[in-house]
Amino acid sequence: MPEDKQILLNAFNMNSVGHINHGLWTHPRDRSHEYKTLSYWTDLARTLERGLFDGIFLADIVGVYDVYAGSVDLTLKESIQLPVNDPTLIVSAMAGVTENLGFGVTVNTSVEHPFTFARRMSTLDHLTGGRIGWNIVTGYLDSAARALGQAGLNDHDDRYDRADDYLELLYKLWEGSWDDHAVVLDRERRIFAEPSRVREIFHDGPYYKAQAYHLAEPSRQRTPVLYQAGSSGRGRTFAGRHAECIFINATDPVSARAVVQALRDEAVAAGRRADEIKIFIGITVVTGRTQAEAEETLSDYLDHASPEAGLAHFSAGTGIDFSRFDLDEEIQYGTGNAIQSVTQLARQKGWSKRQLLKELAIGGRYPLIVGDGGKVAEELIRWVEESGVDGFNLTRTVVPESFETFIDVVVPELQSRGAYRTAYEDGSLRHRLFGQGDRLSDRHFGSQFKFRRSDFAGSADVPTAV
Amino acid sequence: MPEDKQILLNAFNMNSVGHINHGLWTHPRDRSHEYKTLSYWTDLARTLERGLFDGIFLADIVGVYDVYAGSVDLTLKESIQLPVNDPTLIVSAMAGVTENLGFGVTVNTSVEHPFTFARRMSTLDHLTGGRIGWNIVTGYLDSAARALGQAGLNDHDDRYDRADDYLELLYKLWEGSWDDHAVVLDRERRIFAEPSRVREIFHDGPYYKAQAYHLAEPSRQRTPVLYQAGSSGRGRTFAGRHAECIFINATDPVSARAVVQALRDEAVAAGRRADEIKIFIGITVVTGRTQAEAEETLSDYLDHASPEAGLAHFSAGTGIDFSRFDLDEEIQYGTGNAIQSVTQLARQKGWSKRQLLKELAIGGRYPLIVGDGGKVAEELIRWVEESGVDGFNLTRTVVPESFETFIDVVVPELQSRGAYRTAYEDGSLRHRLFGQGDRLSDRHFGSQFKFRRSDFAGSADVPTAV
Repeated sequence: MPEDKQILLNAFNMNSVGHINHGLWTHPRDRSHEYKTLSYWTDLARTLERGLFDGIFLADIVGVYDVYAGSVDLTLKESIQLPVNDPTLIVSAMAGVTENLGFGVTVNTSVEHPFTFARRMSTLDHLTGGRIGWNIVTGYLDSAARALGQAGLNDHDDRYDRADDYLELLYKLWEGSWDDHAVVLDRERRIFAEPSRVREIFHDGPYYKAQAYHLAEPSRQRTPVLYQAGSSGRGRTFAGRHAECIFINATDPVSARAVVQALRDEAVAAGRRADEIKIFIGITVVTGRTQAEAEETLSDYLDHASPEAGLAHFSAGTGIDFSRFDLDEEIQYGTGNAIQSVTQLARQKGWSKRQLLKELAIGGRYPLIVGDGGKVAEELIRWVEESGVDGFNLTRTVVPESFETFIDVVVPELQSRGAYRTAYEDGSLRHRLFGQGDRLSDRHFGSQFKFRRSDFAGSADVPTAV
Repeated sequence: MPEDKQILLNAFNMNSVGHINHGLWTHPRDRSHEYKTLSYWTDLARTLERGLFDGIFLADIVGVYDVYAGSVDLTLKESIQLPVNDPTLIVSAMAGVTENLGFGVTVNTSVEHPFTFARRMSTLDHLTGGRIGWNIVTGYLDSAARALGQAGLNDHDDRYDRADDYLELLYKLWEGSWDDHAVVLDRERRIFAEPSRVREIFHDGPYYKAQAYHLAEPSRQRTPVLYQAGSSGRGRTFAGRHAECIFINATDPVSARAVVQALRDEAVAAGRRADEIKIFIGITVVTGRTQAEAEETLSDYLDHASPEAGLAHFSAGTGIDFSRFDLDEEIQYGTGNAIQSVTQLARQKGWSKRQLLKELAIGGRYPLIVGDGGKVAEELIRWVEESGVDGFNLTRTVVPESFETFIDVVVPELQSRGAYRTAYEDGSLRHRLFGQGDRLSDRHFGSQFKFRRSDFAGSADVPTAV
């Protein structure tokens, strides 16, 4: 790992009981059922800030998992991301008790019009002082489409075309409607905002139309830090254009390396620098003060885990009803529509359902590292060196103890190896990630929509150049 | 006033600089430009809880005011509700620093599909422990329609038909998808939620369709306390069916009394009790330790107010461009589409624009009470006695001092007259308002959608009876 490169860390979480490592809500020390209370989130935010985490990354889903056995029965029994509350609404409480922690919230582009969504993100960027990120998802569940009164899911590539249009309108609102110096707060002259520095934007895209002033004044970052997790070909093109942080998953550093290279190539093809994207890999860690303690903890967690819930979750991601397979039958099926890594592995290795269940018990679709602080630190450093990723989305097991133990045991070992910060850098979330200021890089696609006074002759009603 | 009747108080506010009493952002002590910071809101929430307020009522608008002089120039210069941030996102931070204060947030029904909106409100009800209310608005600005890519605004009555359909789907999600005892959290039997106590709801309305499990588990109130401010005939019918708290405005107790009676009649016509709606009237108070101090403060505030901004705001509400009138020309026009009281008054009295400007400087469209604590308390009590309203939406002037002074000076005088609580009652926002528990009254329209196990034979896939 290069001397000055430091590992980035997000806590991977969800406003729900079960997230990735299923069944652990049954562990006596697990607090995940408290997800609906404020103190659960403010306690966690303080813990993560103590651990100098870059951010908390909040997943979301707007449908239910009903592929496994064709029902939601197991989904409800094991609380497999159902119930699930809105992730955006817990941010301000967490921001109120922290100063540096970043917040990456997942919001599906099919939920609301970009005009009002733009304001939501600007509001959060204001309230957090520039610590907000948005994980762009386009949705993949038929149950979500039905819940939203749509006949069915749009075609996969069409969803990305639609998301491209959604983003373009967002950039116009975030970057192009208000000049940096629009708000002057001049009490003497009675000018809160200079009308000549605010303009209406126009958008007439294939999917979205708008004629609007952005409702929010400029926030620190304007465009939130953009996260994305596309792994398909079309998803990678989308990521190359838009994403600043990309969340991948892979089962080993070598296969991760290929994905990392392909994503950096996409960014370069889109006119950006290879280091203008930060790549995070999903990982599960079970640790303790000693190797034996870590292994005992894993054994204890496994006693409470629900491999079948992991499989049901996996069914929803792949669209394959794994309940139909016999335990020792080799799994054979076509390409699913998401989460390729374990699927591919299962096919390559000719796994049976029994083996898949074992694999999904703890760690799930993400690599699992079990060990004392030193071993985990070295494994994480090896992952970064061999794969070229920039950091990790650390899944939760038993909460909050899995994050607390990681911070107590692994973080000091990373620090002593020079691989992790010992204090927060100053600045917005984007500046801490990229060291280039608060705003989108000039090479980013969205920067062409930035407000430029030269675009118009001082009048507020000249449309955008684009 | 009946012996046991106590005045209800909401602080009327908005996630913006200018709200009702325009121009006061220029006052040296005014902090309204800090609306984009968390501390502004958490400080205010603590202040209001010190004053035992029922709640903070947050207005919102998703368009801009561009009727006056056909532009947004004055809107920007005086910050007339532009910029305006999202009101829902500040709630969790305020809830984190308070225990009893209620939160009424305005959300327009045209912004998103009921399925995801239902989850937003359920999330807030969870996070606040049952302190959330929703002010239902259907929108009245053409600029909002254009911003959302719509050709223009829907017809007024059609907007209410659409909102009726919106509400019906919401009730099904909030009240009908999960049984009270669905979540059992049984670690031994590995049952987080009993599948037989959760059901998919079906809705095939004229405007909205859905086939969905509500994503959130039951919150304390389920349906948030429903606020509404409809004053038209169709608006009143809507209020009679749905609203639990109704926000009205009037210039004197006698005209208010007629509106109050009409609204209670609507509730009774919809099968409810007359006291199952609480009616709040908008009011502006300028107070001080003495009458002279109050009058000096008013004079100071008037020096910083912008009557023209008040008129521009009023233009947007009525759809009439008042910039076209000469200062001393009598104002003549047809019926506008909102905010009738001052409009009617102006017509009745044959006001000139000059007189309207004076009227709109402080107080605006709401009655203005100026006086020491005792005088204000007596005026408020008189309003309640003569009009039959239950309480007030107290506008802000210079913030936060106008709320602080009110609490220091008026609240003790109300208390000493037995007209205001001396401590918070226990319970959810709804229970504190109505004293009948956390849930919608059984006589409320929405209650027919409550989950009843007898509706189906223990199977999760039987559709709702309605």
